[in-house]
Amino acid sequence: MELSLFNILDILGTMAFATSGALTAMNRKLDLFGVFIIAFVTAIGGGTLRDVLIGNTPVIWMENTIYIYLIGLFTILAIIFRKKIYYLRRSLFLFDTIGLGVFTITGVETGIRNELDPIISVALGAMTGTFGGVIRDILCNEIPVIFRREIYATACLVGGVAFVILYRYNIDHDLIYIITSLTVIVIRLVVVKYKIALPSFYLPEKTG
Amino acid sequence: MELSLFNILDILGTMAFATSGALTAMNRKLDLFGVFIIAFVTAIGGGTLRDVLIGNTPVIWMENTIYIYLIGLFTILAIIFRKKIYYLRRSLFLFDTIGLGVFTITGVETGIRNELDPIISVALGAMTGTFGGVIRDILCNEIPVIFRREIYATACLVGGVAFVILYRYNIDHDLIYIITSLTVIVIRLVVVKYKIALPSFYLPEKTG
Amino acid sequence: MELSLFNILDILGTMAFATSGALTAMNRKLDLFGVFIIAFVTAIGGGTLRDVLIGNTPVIWMENTIYIYLIGLFTILAIIFRKKIYYLRRSLFLFDTIGLGVFTITGVETGIRNELDPIISVALGAMTGTFGGVIRDILCNEIPVIFRREIYATACLVGGVAFVILYRYNIDHDLIYIITSLTVIVIRLVVVKYKIALPSFYLPEKTG
Repeated sequence: MELSLFNILDILGTMAFATSGALTAMNRKLDLFGVFIIAFVTAIGGGTLRDVLIGNTPVIWMENTIYIYLIGLFTILAIIFRKKIYYLRRSLFLFDTIGLGVFTITGVETGIRNELDPIISVALGAMTGTFGGVIRDILCNEIPVIFRREIYATACLVGGVAFVILYRYNIDHDLIYIITSLTVIVIRLVVVKYKIALPSFYLPEKTG
Repeated sequence: MELSLFNILDILGTMAFATSGALTAMNRKLDLFGVFIIAFVTAIGGGTLRDVLIGNTPVIWMENTIYIYLIGLFTILAIIFRKKIYYLRRSLFLFDTIGLGVFTITGVETGIRNELDPIISVALGAMTGTFGGVIRDILCNEIPVIFRREIYATACLVGGVAFVILYRYNIDHDLIYIITSLTVIVIRLVVVKYKIALPSFYLPEKTG
Repeated sequence: MELSLFNILDILGTMAFATSGALTAMNRKLDLFGVFIIAFVTAIGGGTLRDVLIGNTPVIWMENTIYIYLIGLFTILAIIFRKKIYYLRRSLFLFDTIGLGVFTITGVETGIRNELDPIISVALGAMTGTFGGVIRDILCNEIPVIFRREIYATACLVGGVAFVILYRYNIDHDLIYIITSLTVIVIRLVVVKYKIALPSFYLPEKTG
């Protein structure tokens, strides 16, 4: 595999989400292999959904063993340093955010490469960025992260839109990757730090 | 895109499920983009599963922007008219039922077009019809709609069987689409209105 | 369809998981079609995920009606004999374990046939083995079986590794299938009988 920045981002997101999955699984008191499996599913979830929707099969982690070895390595590191990571407080949040940022951009890029419409590429990016965290939370019976009012999805969408706009000007692609990934990450960090929230909508009571 | 009745049904189901997703998400007090994302996933869920299982990738909403714009539009409409929709009481139920009816039939039709066995086409139809609502409910921590004892799945199966039977006689396809979609919708409406329920099965206590 | 041992295992797993799905659905007091749908999704879940990830579409149960008829048959048998099965106590557990064992091996074999790396084939096997049970439990609001500390995932991984090791020596493939499927099943049975558990990891309190 030629190691393009696309691959590097994909790998970085894999490591970040593997760590976040391992931490969540340890919180649920899973055993060694349970921790690994949650780390694995969290790490590959977004990229797998991206590849399956676009028809790029076998999916990316099947074509190269680097993903599975890295997930194994970061699961072990997360287990060894679990107390240190804990004292770093916001670690789970941080890893989740990094994964979100870089996977969103790989999703948008995949859409554009496949000549999809820009707005559809942004939607693919948002699904790629969020899916790993969503299945991690569903499997671990956590409230899915997209509901914790942290403008999670919004960060994806803003980063994705920035990507497709920058893409129209002849800016170096690698630079676009880095700028837009950081956009997603910074938005989420700032929003959480300053407790910014978009409005939600009042409904009298349960409909239906 | 040539706008066949198949496409029209697919779009109608998309609008109905988008609305039902937006209503459910507002019930969960999600913010603007959260509401859009749930509407999106609910609306495209069934068709995406159908296309992925059959190998028709990129999936349908990626090939044409009309889906994403309609989902955006109906999310906004659902937000603006949320109180009116609320006072219409059974709105969520109604939109869910329309989506169920038309998506079931697009699933059955897709199976038959791909020369699958009729009974397999009916199964594909049932999965296409129910999947959007199931992921909406899983993501929103609602009890999945298929468990509310409303003969939800049964309506799909009856409509699907009607489709494959009518298909054998040389009846106009568009007529079949309309009859069978309405069959699913009417069965569900009647069943809920008259509180009809199929029997469930007594088990002494939890096995396993 | 030529009935190779691969197909036989796939069918055996389908029957076992259909039964486990039907039992779980009856526990949740679903009606007749609800029971069938959960049985169906549980039975085809693992194989469908396997085929979608590898790009083998339409997925296996669409190409041959034997799956859907068998699932129907075993759903009816599970309903008829539900009290007898109940008195056999560990039935749900037993059927789940058989499904786990044989589906894991079909997943590993599919990976190797598609010339994937052995470790990736093991991961594919673990996902194939566990996915049906996971969606059954998510749909039925049960705590997913992989969290019940029964070394569920571990059994898959050990069986999968045994498969790829035996595969390197020129042992008859059918023999490998049987040995490794039984390995998964026996490990899980022994582990539960003797309440063996892998260690989980202490974390001071909720991170994140």
